[in-house]
Amino acid sequence: MVEAPVYEAMAQPVVGYLDPYFFEIAAKVRDGLRQAFGTANPLTIAISGTGSSGMETAVANFVEPDSRFAVFVAGYFGDRLCEMGRRQGAQIARCEKPWGETFSDEEAAEFIQRAKPHVVAFVHAETSTGALQDGKAIATAAHDAGALVIADCVTSLGGIPVNADSTGIDIAYSCTQKGLSCPSGLAPFTASPRAMEWLHGRKSPMREWYLDLRLIEEYYDAPHRYHHTASATLFYGLAEGLRVILDEGLEKRFARHCACHQRFVKGLDAMGVAMHVAAPHRIPHLNTPVVPAGVSDVAIRKYLLDKHAIEIAGGFGPLAGKILRIGLMGPLATPEHTDEFLGAFDGTLRHLRA
Amino acid sequence: MVEAPVYEAMAQPVVGYLDPYFFEIAAKVRDGLRQAFGTANPLTIAISGTGSSGMETAVANFVEPDSRFAVFVAGYFGDRLCEMGRRQGAQIARCEKPWGETFSDEEAAEFIQRAKPHVVAFVHAETSTGALQDGKAIATAAHDAGALVIADCVTSLGGIPVNADSTGIDIAYSCTQKGLSCPSGLAPFTASPRAMEWLHGRKSPMREWYLDLRLIEEYYDAPHRYHHTASATLFYGLAEGLRVILDEGLEKRFARHCACHQRFVKGLDAMGVAMHVAAPHRIPHLNTPVVPAGVSDVAIRKYLLDKHAIEIAGGFGPLAGKILRIGLMGPLATPEHTDEFLGAFDGTLRHLRA
Repeated sequence: MVEAPVYEAMAQPVVGYLDPYFFEIAAKVRDGLRQAFGTANPLTIAISGTGSSGMETAVANFVEPDSRFAVFVAGYFGDRLCEMGRRQGAQIARCEKPWGETFSDEEAAEFIQRAKPHVVAFVHAETSTGALQDGKAIATAAHDAGALVIADCVTSLGGIPVNADSTGIDIAYSCTQKGLSCPSGLAPFTASPRAMEWLHGRKSPMREWYLDLRLIEEYYDAPHRYHHTASATLFYGLAEGLRVILDEGLEKRFARHCACHQRFVKGLDAMGVAMHVAAPHRIPHLNTPVVPAGVSDVAIRKYLLDKHAIEIAGGFGPLAGKILRIGLMGPLATPEHTDEFLGAFDGTLRHLRA
Repeated sequence: MVEAPVYEAMAQPVVGYLDPYFFEIAAKVRDGLRQAFGTANPLTIAISGTGSSGMETAVANFVEPDSRFAVFVAGYFGDRLCEMGRRQGAQIARCEKPWGETFSDEEAAEFIQRAKPHVVAFVHAETSTGALQDGKAIATAAHDAGALVIADCVTSLGGIPVNADSTGIDIAYSCTQKGLSCPSGLAPFTASPRAMEWLHGRKSPMREWYLDLRLIEEYYDAPHRYHHTASATLFYGLAEGLRVILDEGLEKRFARHCACHQRFVKGLDAMGVAMHVAAPHRIPHLNTPVVPAGVSDVAIRKYLLDKHAIEIAGGFGPLAGKILRIGLMGPLATPEHTDEFLGAFDGTLRHLRA
């Protein structure tokens, strides 16, 4: 759900890609993103593409042909990181678990010590399962092995703390339409000075021109060399979305997501509906209950949409038909909206079981 | 300049990337783009990135490592096509002329016969110079040589006829913020059945995942396999922008651009200001007069912006300080706006020469 001021901001007249006003807006976006990522990284920007372009920017720039790329996979987006690494010609080492599980500190350290990777990647909040992967042990082991750390924060940014700097994340990317509650179309991106130093010394050629981070850096920072025509409209929207978030305060927003999550789980528990992910590893603003016995996910989703105009997602891949994916974030994360959903969900189950 | 209904359309609530309503809007966009491109190509879509991502989609998908890539270069974007081809590992053959000139039918045919390329690329309307390159002889010679034809239509689409099918263009891309008068952020793209047949048989691996046209095709067409979260907001805007254009009628819009162009050139002529490009090869909606003797482009642009709130662009590369680049397109292409500009320009020259 996108708030009205964001739409209003997007109706501002378009300015040129080298207009000082554009860079003024871009500076606001970059500052807001630094706060949301929990980083002081100078290279913090929004890539001109969707969240998936952020993943490609991370992998294409930092994973070289023939390098060793270690990926933690327990969901769809872990898999996609491997696919992008494979396309770059890297040697992929997968640390794999069933969808929805997470990796313990010991498992993370052991895998990285064994894989001796140049780059390690993990998915902070796996949208396909609802599981939250803590990055501290992964980043520590990766740095001990001399590797760079990529974190997929597509679902976490703006919803929960990312703490990129204190966690030790070198490269992180996200999207604008989840935790930041803006229209999609840009990919927030950050890279540590250590990562940029590596990139500036990269020897192997890069095929990608549009997502070449060195060209993008020269556009957003001095010498402001023309690269592409960034969408002023999307930047206006993101700047306003970040202003709304920072006006409330990140901590308050995160606490609101957690409180609604607890209310939601308690409500489901009362209906006898279990959660797919173990309690300490749940994404608070993306809930993944197990599809209750005796009803189908398709029937639940259809009834909710038809009778209550509520759109929720189903599981896919190994979790197809087994879980539901229910976002409660941004302006929707209130006790009232949570209770409204719980009431509708309860009515749906009663109807389908009747 | 973006018209009000386009901004209004962008404030519609965001829907999911697999929502039937999204594909309904996408179908409208695709149909409108087919009309603007002058093509019946089923694979006509909008890529989730700016115009530059359209160029990369064309080159990355259709120019293979070690293939022969022949490019007509008489401006900045011809150069960029070569750079992208080089990054893909292709052997580049450049047919080069000074910025602002165009290639005759004989020059085009002779070059292509000599280069024996797998792919030929040209810039239909070169923004950096204001020159329009007719594609018919290029496409005919390219097809005789068995090559695919890429046309950069970033500045032409929606401003003048592209006639992709009757010209013989296999692959064309554009942006949304020029001839289509929408906010930037999407890259209109079309590929002929012949080009798609070639692509489906392509043997060499592609590094790019985000701009892999085969994945994008599977998302927009059946089986609608999830690829990325396309920006519903930008699609709403583009659909509305195309509706405005088609309501007026493409032919009427093109005629309006030509009439304003003639009025503009006549007005400049009366001031003794010459055009950089030879008369038969000018882009009607992007005018490039020569900077008049005795005044600097910087002074002209600053005075126009400060005193008249009119933003025009300067030349760059070999044309830095030598030309001005003045867009008269979409809602700005009226006799009133043209005269308003001419009056302001005349006043500016008088002031600077006084």
